[in-house]
Amino acid sequence: MPEIHEARRARLATLVAARGAEAALITRLVNVRYLTGLASSNAALLVRADGSAVLATDGRYAGTAARVCPDLECVIDRAAAGVLAGRARGRLAFEAHDVTVEARDALAAEPDAPELVPLGRAVEELRMVKDEEEIVLLAEACAITDRAFDAVLPALRPGVTEREIAIALDRAMVDLGADRPAFATIVASGPNGAIPHHVPSGRAIERGDLVTMDFGALRDGYHADMTRTVAVGEAGAWEREIYELVAAAQAAGLTAARPEAVTKEVDAASRGVIQEAGHGEDFPHGLGHGVGLEIHEAPLMGYDKTGKLMDRVPITVEPGVYVAGRGGVRIEDTLVVRADGPELLTKTTKDLLVI
Amino acid sequence: MPEIHEARRARLATLVAARGAEAALITRLVNVRYLTGLASSNAALLVRADGSAVLATDGRYAGTAARVCPDLECVIDRAAAGVLAGRARGRLAFEAHDVTVEARDALAAEPDAPELVPLGRAVEELRMVKDEEEIVLLAEACAITDRAFDAVLPALRPGVTEREIAIALDRAMVDLGADRPAFATIVASGPNGAIPHHVPSGRAIERGDLVTMDFGALRDGYHADMTRTVAVGEAGAWEREIYELVAAAQAAGLTAARPEAVTKEVDAASRGVIQEAGHGEDFPHGLGHGVGLEIHEAPLMGYDKTGKLMDRVPITVEPGVYVAGRGGVRIEDTLVVRADGPELLTKTTKDLLVI
Repeated sequence: MPEIHEARRARLATLVAARGAEAALITRLVNVRYLTGLASSNAALLVRADGSAVLATDGRYAGTAARVCPDLECVIDRAAAGVLAGRARGRLAFEAHDVTVEARDALAAEPDAPELVPLGRAVEELRMVKDEEEIVLLAEACAITDRAFDAVLPALRPGVTEREIAIALDRAMVDLGADRPAFATIVASGPNGAIPHHVPSGRAIERGDLVTMDFGALRDGYHADMTRTVAVGEAGAWEREIYELVAAAQAAGLTAARPEAVTKEVDAASRGVIQEAGHGEDFPHGLGHGVGLEIHEAPLMGYDKTGKLMDRVPITVEPGVYVAGRGGVRIEDTLVVRADGPELLTKTTKDLLVI
Repeated sequence: MPEIHEARRARLATLVAARGAEAALITRLVNVRYLTGLASSNAALLVRADGSAVLATDGRYAGTAARVCPDLECVIDRAAAGVLAGRARGRLAFEAHDVTVEARDALAAEPDAPELVPLGRAVEELRMVKDEEEIVLLAEACAITDRAFDAVLPALRPGVTEREIAIALDRAMVDLGADRPAFATIVASGPNGAIPHHVPSGRAIERGDLVTMDFGALRDGYHADMTRTVAVGEAGAWEREIYELVAAAQAAGLTAARPEAVTKEVDAASRGVIQEAGHGEDFPHGLGHGVGLEIHEAPLMGYDKTGKLMDRVPITVEPGVYVAGRGGVRIEDTLVVRADGPELLTKTTKDLLVI
């Protein structure tokens, strides 16, 4: 898809020109990937205000770069950022949120070093609204995630440990076509469900437990993210009550996730349901986050976050209620904000499953 | 092991005092872990020249921090580095190879901001020589790696793909007690063996192939790293020849890996064997690297690297020969440099196995 990447670079070039810089030096590897298609552990990209660009990477990636971005001039050099800075003239905008103080000082110490000015998170902002091609890739990662859930559900029985379920989910995702899990899978059972980022333990699941599973597939660079909470054997009255509460809050969040919605208000729409039920203190994290080439990216949605949603922005909506010593529920979808309502990419049922 | 971490902090405090700083702000997460025992995705540590220290992390890690480092004052704050910088007075040494320009500017903009001076890689240098307790953990990770190799060897038959073998190695390591693979497992068969960092593909293994497997277990934070190359079905004369060449070069590297040895000369001792056989151009990477809380850490060993080995420094020795279009061999051990000769932590045979 070289045309897609060229179009993305053209959008960045416009921003570079608007900031009065002659070029931007892109060093965040995920941003280099977005602008070129090249996934490399050592690369940098120079994008000039006139739209021309030069890629640099080391010898390990020379063949891949020639295949993935044949339209781009590519310099093979281990000092990828340094060699590109050496080609820049005038004001060079750099990613101050990525470049370390040591690396910036090294760039500035070169003879004929350009004047370094901060670019800000320009590429991250461009990445927020996805191409339809990206949404297809995200949907594939989410479909693998749904199927892995179906595959592992029968294994959820009293006696099996959290760690065993986490491993089974990870393996199912890879067997179904994931490159790897998109992040460290969470399986939290019974009282452990009260810990939002619980690390799967050797705790054996018991009859009557709620079990929260937060996992997702990574495929072709795109990250899926889904959470479901199920009951094992039976669901008590308390468990049903908080499950229905979180499900209602999640539905309210989905409804509010419209283009032009203020992220803080989307958070409030969902959080309000939980607060009205007296569980406001038991929901200590933000409502969700953008998702794409990174598992957490712009926009972040929390009660203290600024920003607006837009058409074609994929986000998660993941409210939870966590009651220390007792347990918890979280329900999360990956979805795309659309003018005619959210397009759910994770499609697993949100009815309470009693396994 | 709070005493171990306290002793490490005392060594750092001595360096801080020697540099005329009042404190060091440690932000590299692996260094925070080394100095406190806390593995967190958001943490920082202030170590004062007088040896006192304050840890900061966010609410998700409050319980773990209290358990792992009960002796340390711990501030719970999402802005971990910022809150600690606010407690510093005078000259504050910071990790300029870790802190971004944006983060440094934010620290410097605080009212009463301390004077920020670079600390250098002081903690990375301390980490190079391992405690015996660390070597025990590394040995456990390496033992899992050896056992995973034994477990997967029977699956290496014509028709199986590189990707299937890589997945089998990863799963065997986890089944044998690894937290996860220490890095992305490499399986390179036949002509793919000529690519040092080959990504496992759908290529089916054929009779007569050499298959290079580079993999390792991660356990309790410590990384194992081992490469073995085996022949499938039969080994041709050319395959045997380069195998024996690399095995001889690897043995020469092990013999040279003594305390006080100059890393460049250890590289030369192994590389010379390959050069004498006319394959110098076919060994395009360094001989090895330190290994511990990171898969690649100090000391790096290559023809252009400076430094000396010391007692209790774990390294890899991993020469290879890669012939484009034909194939390759790499043989790698993780070992500890000791006065009485290298202590191999990976113990799998280096005789050519024909499976």
